[in-house]
Amino acid sequence: MTLSREKVFRDPVHDYVHIQDKVIIDLINSREFQRLRRIKQLGTSSYTFHGAEHSRFNHSLGVYETARRIADKFERSFPSQAEHDGLWDTSERLIALCAALLHDIGHGPFSHTFEEIFNTNHEKLTQLIITSPETEINRILRRVSDDFPDKVASVINKTYPNQQVVQLISSQIDADRMDYLLRDGYYAGVSYGTFDLTRILRVIRPFNDKIVFDFSGMHAVEDYIISRYQMYMQVYFHPVSRGMEEVLQNLFSRAKYCYLHKPEDMRYPIDFLKPFLLGNWTLQDYLKLDDHIMSNFFAHWREDNDAILADLANRFLCRKPFKSIIVNPEEKTELATAVREVLFDAGYDAQYYFGENSSFDLPYDYYRLDAKTNRTQIELITKNNQIVELSKVSPLVNSLAGKVRGDYRIYFPKELLEDLRTIPADQLNDNQRKVLVAYANERSDDTHQVQQRLF
Amino acid sequence: MTLSREKVFRDPVHDYVHIQDKVIIDLINSREFQRLRRIKQLGTSSYTFHGAEHSRFNHSLGVYETARRIADKFERSFPSQAEHDGLWDTSERLIALCAALLHDIGHGPFSHTFEEIFNTNHEKLTQLIITSPETEINRILRRVSDDFPDKVASVINKTYPNQQVVQLISSQIDADRMDYLLRDGYYAGVSYGTFDLTRILRVIRPFNDKIVFDFSGMHAVEDYIISRYQMYMQVYFHPVSRGMEEVLQNLFSRAKYCYLHKPEDMRYPIDFLKPFLLGNWTLQDYLKLDDHIMSNFFAHWREDNDAILADLANRFLCRKPFKSIIVNPEEKTELATAVREVLFDAGYDAQYYFGENSSFDLPYDYYRLDAKTNRTQIELITKNNQIVELSKVSPLVNSLAGKVRGDYRIYFPKELLEDLRTIPADQLNDNQRKVLVAYANERSDDTHQVQQRLF
Amino acid sequence: MTLSREKVFRDPVHDYVHIQDKVIIDLINSREFQRLRRIKQLGTSSYTFHGAEHSRFNHSLGVYETARRIADKFERSFPSQAEHDGLWDTSERLIALCAALLHDIGHGPFSHTFEEIFNTNHEKLTQLIITSPETEINRILRRVSDDFPDKVASVINKTYPNQQVVQLISSQIDADRMDYLLRDGYYAGVSYGTFDLTRILRVIRPFNDKIVFDFSGMHAVEDYIISRYQMYMQVYFHPVSRGMEEVLQNLFSRAKYCYLHKPEDMRYPIDFLKPFLLGNWTLQDYLKLDDHIMSNFFAHWREDNDAILADLANRFLCRKPFKSIIVNPEEKTELATAVREVLFDAGYDAQYYFGENSSFDLPYDYYRLDAKTNRTQIELITKNNQIVELSKVSPLVNSLAGKVRGDYRIYFPKELLEDLRTIPADQLNDNQRKVLVAYANERSDDTHQVQQRLF
Amino acid sequence: MTLSREKVFRDPVHDYVHIQDKVIIDLINSREFQRLRRIKQLGTSSYTFHGAEHSRFNHSLGVYETARRIADKFERSFPSQAEHDGLWDTSERLIALCAALLHDIGHGPFSHTFEEIFNTNHEKLTQLIITSPETEINRILRRVSDDFPDKVASVINKTYPNQQVVQLISSQIDADRMDYLLRDGYYAGVSYGTFDLTRILRVIRPFNDKIVFDFSGMHAVEDYIISRYQMYMQVYFHPVSRGMEEVLQNLFSRAKYCYLHKPEDMRYPIDFLKPFLLGNWTLQDYLKLDDHIMSNFFAHWREDNDAILADLANRFLCRKPFKSIIVNPEEKTELATAVREVLFDAGYDAQYYFGENSSFDLPYDYYRLDAKTNRTQIELITKNNQIVELSKVSPLVNSLAGKVRGDYRIYFPKELLEDLRTIPADQLNDNQRKVLVAYANERSDDTHQVQQRLF
Repeated sequence: MTLSREKVFRDPVHDYVHIQDKVIIDLINSREFQRLRRIKQLGTSSYTFHGAEHSRFNHSLGVYETARRIADKFERSFPSQAEHDGLWDTSERLIALCAALLHDIGHGPFSHTFEEIFNTNHEKLTQLIITSPETEINRILRRVSDDFPDKVASVINKTYPNQQVVQLISSQIDADRMDYLLRDGYYAGVSYGTFDLTRILRVIRPFNDKIVFDFSGMHAVEDYIISRYQMYMQVYFHPVSRGMEEVLQNLFSRAKYCYLHKPEDMRYPIDFLKPFLLGNWTLQDYLKLDDHIMSNFFAHWREDNDAILADLANRFLCRKPFKSIIVNPEEKTELATAVREVLFDAGYDAQYYFGENSSFDLPYDYYRLDAKTNRTQIELITKNNQIVELSKVSPLVNSLAGKVRGDYRIYFPKELLEDLRTIPADQLNDNQRKVLVAYANERSDDTHQVQQRLF
Repeated sequence: MTLSREKVFRDPVHDYVHIQDKVIIDLINSREFQRLRRIKQLGTSSYTFHGAEHSRFNHSLGVYETARRIADKFERSFPSQAEHDGLWDTSERLIALCAALLHDIGHGPFSHTFEEIFNTNHEKLTQLIITSPETEINRILRRVSDDFPDKVASVINKTYPNQQVVQLISSQIDADRMDYLLRDGYYAGVSYGTFDLTRILRVIRPFNDKIVFDFSGMHAVEDYIISRYQMYMQVYFHPVSRGMEEVLQNLFSRAKYCYLHKPEDMRYPIDFLKPFLLGNWTLQDYLKLDDHIMSNFFAHWREDNDAILADLANRFLCRKPFKSIIVNPEEKTELATAVREVLFDAGYDAQYYFGENSSFDLPYDYYRLDAKTNRTQIELITKNNQIVELSKVSPLVNSLAGKVRGDYRIYFPKELLEDLRTIPADQLNDNQRKVLVAYANERSDDTHQVQQRLF
Repeated sequence: MTLSREKVFRDPVHDYVHIQDKVIIDLINSREFQRLRRIKQLGTSSYTFHGAEHSRFNHSLGVYETARRIADKFERSFPSQAEHDGLWDTSERLIALCAALLHDIGHGPFSHTFEEIFNTNHEKLTQLIITSPETEINRILRRVSDDFPDKVASVINKTYPNQQVVQLISSQIDADRMDYLLRDGYYAGVSYGTFDLTRILRVIRPFNDKIVFDFSGMHAVEDYIISRYQMYMQVYFHPVSRGMEEVLQNLFSRAKYCYLHKPEDMRYPIDFLKPFLLGNWTLQDYLKLDDHIMSNFFAHWREDNDAILADLANRFLCRKPFKSIIVNPEEKTELATAVREVLFDAGYDAQYYFGENSSFDLPYDYYRLDAKTNRTQIELITKNNQIVELSKVSPLVNSLAGKVRGDYRIYFPKELLEDLRTIPADQLNDNQRKVLVAYANERSDDTHQVQQRLF
Repeated sequence: MTLSREKVFRDPVHDYVHIQDKVIIDLINSREFQRLRRIKQLGTSSYTFHGAEHSRFNHSLGVYETARRIADKFERSFPSQAEHDGLWDTSERLIALCAALLHDIGHGPFSHTFEEIFNTNHEKLTQLIITSPETEINRILRRVSDDFPDKVASVINKTYPNQQVVQLISSQIDADRMDYLLRDGYYAGVSYGTFDLTRILRVIRPFNDKIVFDFSGMHAVEDYIISRYQMYMQVYFHPVSRGMEEVLQNLFSRAKYCYLHKPEDMRYPIDFLKPFLLGNWTLQDYLKLDDHIMSNFFAHWREDNDAILADLANRFLCRKPFKSIIVNPEEKTELATAVREVLFDAGYDAQYYFGENSSFDLPYDYYRLDAKTNRTQIELITKNNQIVELSKVSPLVNSLAGKVRGDYRIYFPKELLEDLRTIPADQLNDNQRKVLVAYANERSDDTHQVQQRLF
């Protein structure tokens, strides 16, 4: 059903988000979608870039709007005229828009860290929220047709037959990524996320069941890949944000430990978290979680009897990130051991005051016979309909293709360093010296990013 | 103490926030200041402008940076050379910066609404947080000198002897307002908050113990006043955000009622809120509160046995704002009665499903003999050092001076309207008709803003 | 004829200018339109705002694009369904776009000043270029239909029957003004021209043979009026740009004098200018003129035997604006006399080293019975289709309505002042003292803008 | 001499340009500098990007301002304390600012093309304008000291002993390039020129007689290199702008031919151009030239008796660029011959309706033993003062280093193609077919950029 009057949301990135379908507005108003207002898009990144406090609600509207513009463009310029002509099937519009809007609906609080400790999976949960008859979202989608929820879920799952719809939502250049680069850059206040979306919307087109880009837009696509690379290097992998993640991960671990081993000590009722501590949770349990619920636990835990739990909770709420040393893969084990020893000597429980964090990204890749998970490569189309893979014509993209970039880091409390520094140099033991040297080395060159050719 | 190396925060509005003093960085890292990360700058406005999810932490850094730029400019161009020369006393720098940074430190979750129900006062709390020896902030400030906390508090309290410092932080054109107009506009994605800050920083100057502006900058100042007016009319007073505030206010009221009258029914422990429900709280109690803690209560209350509490909590979390009718002052009582009657007839408890909200702002005013609270008027200085009050030379500002603008609204659940509309016209009773007509009238002209001359 | 593939021009203000019609692209490529590349949009303003060097070609594309967006919006949302339903007649599209593109086609170099001396009229010339069979533009328009050029001309002339089309191009809020405020602000590097075009394009609509704006967009329209006011006060009326205009006007006068009274002295052939000096020019003569042609004359004149001609030409090319004194209307004659006397005493020919310049603008007005030229007032439409005139609901706009704002200034060479300042105070004669005092006064308050109620 | 009050110019790129020195303001007001207002920064690029009509005056102010900010930063943070400490010698400030402001002062109209035909050299002319006692600029500089002009010239000439000053003005990342990327991007309306200048100004520092960048700013510098690359590929090398350049070059050639071989036919006096046609010009002759003077010649020439001269002049003024075919180096000669044959057959004088244009740029390079002209490589400095060359740590920059990128193109009138297309395929001769095929090929892939490893 089309709305009698288009609704709009004022948006800092796209100016306006335009809604023409009742299904879309109802999905936005659903309980599960409104919950995304209480989940930050970038987790701990706002501890480094204070401007980046935006929610997944915010971003999800942006993905929808980007997909809508692409769908509108396809409908206007490349509507399918005959079966198998490889152009855009205009009847796919609503399914594409719903999938765009809902692609992140399964995210929970601090997804990455939470999943590691509590064994949840936001991708499966996205599927479940869409297909389970318990949810408002499912009920709204079913109003379209009985199989509509499954179709939407299969788009996100990449198994939907129409691969143009799939690529619109998930590929190396999709509505999701285009929105988050622009949006995260806008909120963080950095220019690195900027690329020329208007130009990309001019050169994007459906072709032979794929989405391709006019050759003349090569540099705009190249620029997008570089923005992606820069945002990962500069914002998403920032060592300080990861230092907060490490605090968080240890905090979750310790809470689990306390609950399982000395539940009588936990003064504050853990209610909403209990099913996850017990490893026995339902979709409804999951939907109760958000950043605010977690934050409330932390606020209570910092008054807990367990000193470690209280300390870690306080570190998180008061932004006291762990410090880090960057390590080469080969020296990782040795240095980790040294740090653990030093922690132990200084009276820390190394199980909860130590972290290893590796963050790597593959900025771009083309099809490879030997790759485990095949990515959809980015293709350009020439005026006489020949297809060229992007890295073949862009030396910039080629220099990034097939190589992961990032680093390994070992994390520990800042106070440890401060303590070590008070020890006279000739009284340092081997491990202490090793840690200080490694830390000093890093600060001396900061080349925290390594690259590794994947294939 | 000056930092050996300036620290910076990347900021979307000011590009960088620059920190040169150890006191400032320590204040930012304090427990009380970090708490501002968990308090939204604009309360319920993000329910209308989804982009505006930024925190008071974010804004407080911006006020600091704006004050720093002004202080730097004064120091460079107008340092006092002799006592009573009316220029800038460079020894005031640190006190001005601390006051700028901390001017909002006493804010709690949803301040406006919370204060009304629980009788707190964020201005007094700001003073208390600064001057009470219990806080980290006080300890940091005391490192400067024993009387430094009191001095900082008195700047915010406007009683500090040096009125240039006071005006820098609070006047009709101060670091606080300049930052929030730009910042709120940036995050909301509207251009109304834009004015020419760079130009204002060029024309601002100390003069005879006041802060004035070069005459040549008149239009930049005028533009700032108009931005302020537009942001109030377009963003801060938006009827939908206020519809969410009304839900919230009724929710707090109901929680108080439930606790006081049937505490056995409240299934979820109210711990952090208890001192406020009992009207017997301490500073430490207050400092435990933030948006997240509140949100956690709402999440639990929506499962409460009390149907009204549960319903209101759900409305807030799922963004179901009350609808409103705009009313003239003279017909206010009559229409309020009608709405209450209709609510009662429809089975609502009018005590918790009804709201009156008036939002008025005085965009600008000059000194008046008969005014209750005298504002510091904005003054321009000519090349031969004559002082001219702004509204004397700006017809735009003059048209706004001394008049409050805003509206009165009566709020109620959206469903009430939907129900009324199903009743055949000839079966409506008088009150029902009155409500429908008033609602239709508003929608027909939307002139929701009235102005009223104050003097 | 529609183009097989839309053509675009990259534009800093509108991102892209989109061309779908062959007639439009042909008009842009015509000899007369390309000539606009060589005529600056803002004449002498780039001598004050060095960024504002853009041409009328640049702006004309922008007016076209703004009109196109409005026409597209009307076509999508408000197409006429029946005769006299007051909605948008979609068959008017091309005529509206052509009129938008060509509305400034009759402009020549430094129009304002040139017209004063040489008695040309860019509005009549716009009509002529469109309707004369000599021009490429006319030939292109005639391809649509024989009467098409006349229709386009009548839109610009405001006599076209469909007043919606007329208002789109010329009214108090039209495609022309919307583009130039944004564009001139962008190029000058000032924020004053900014208003929310996207929002205005959302609320604009055809209604009863007029163009009106949804009531909900009142503040966006209000903001546009204020931008207009600010741009006039801050940019268009800048005293230094007008000081360059005064140099130019005297330069043209002197050239005319030299040609008529001592042609044998003019060393450089005046070819393209001759018909204008003789007052006997044709359309083809006019179309040969542009800023570059004029500049070439100046470059040669500064080597002329006539000292005054040479000096004024040099002042213009080397940016040596006349200085000014602001005067009240009542003291104008007296001060003008004083300045002339002082000039004479100092050896200047007051006929060519003196200027009077008054610049006034009426930022907005509503219909008035007694007005000489009736402007189309700006009207808002409420949800139940009532029409409200803008200034009735906006106190800001009301404060500007019906009052012209600007100033009178007397101009003279900067050296005159410098000379006067070397004279000991007690040796100044009356006129000299009067001039110095008047100049000092202005500098002391800079209240150079007066307002005058028109009615 | 320092100005009593800082002067500012409003600038769209840097917000304000700040002038503190009387020498600087006097240089700006000089005859030779004001002349830059009449010379477009980007020559024929505004025929492709209509927004890019800005002058060299505009850019020169921007280079000055960028240099001023760097010098201020160096002065504040890294002032030399002792001889040979490798830090910034604050007494170099004025010389650096003058060199920045004047680095382009020798440019003439359409420099690249003009120089090719008339054998001028803007770099030598820059030196001459600064050092010749005939110029106002020289006189102003000499007020500082007798050897000041020579010093300024030597900075631009790269022979000045203090290499930090030299690198500030000319190196692979200097004030000139930083300004033009941002400025040309702003005016053209493309985002490709954007990089994070504020961040670069934070990480730039003097070190051991060189200018280096903190390692932590690596990605900002990387981003700058990529912006540079993108601007060359997307804007500066645009085939259509070069198509206008080819028209211009042929036009100048033909004018030269006409003057030398049939001067009696040239109806319009060529005055200012004569010395150049005769190859016997002085500095004063050169300083009389600008875009406007040239444009005036074209306007007259399009009425000339010589049909070729008239036609080419008209093409230039009415923006009728030559079309092009991209060629590989190996097939260049063959295709050039074919095009010339086809032109001849079609009645064109191939000497004036044919062009070869190769545009190549080296986006970045490091020192090489075997390079002809050594560029100053970009160096990063780690926390413990080790120097790392940029491409060693940036794979993106490494992918661009040492390779020139661009293309070879053959140009001819558009009408030639149109004519060929009317010939039935089976009646095409070999050359005609070759041309059509080559043109079709290009359009089919547009891979107009080739890269070539230099070493």
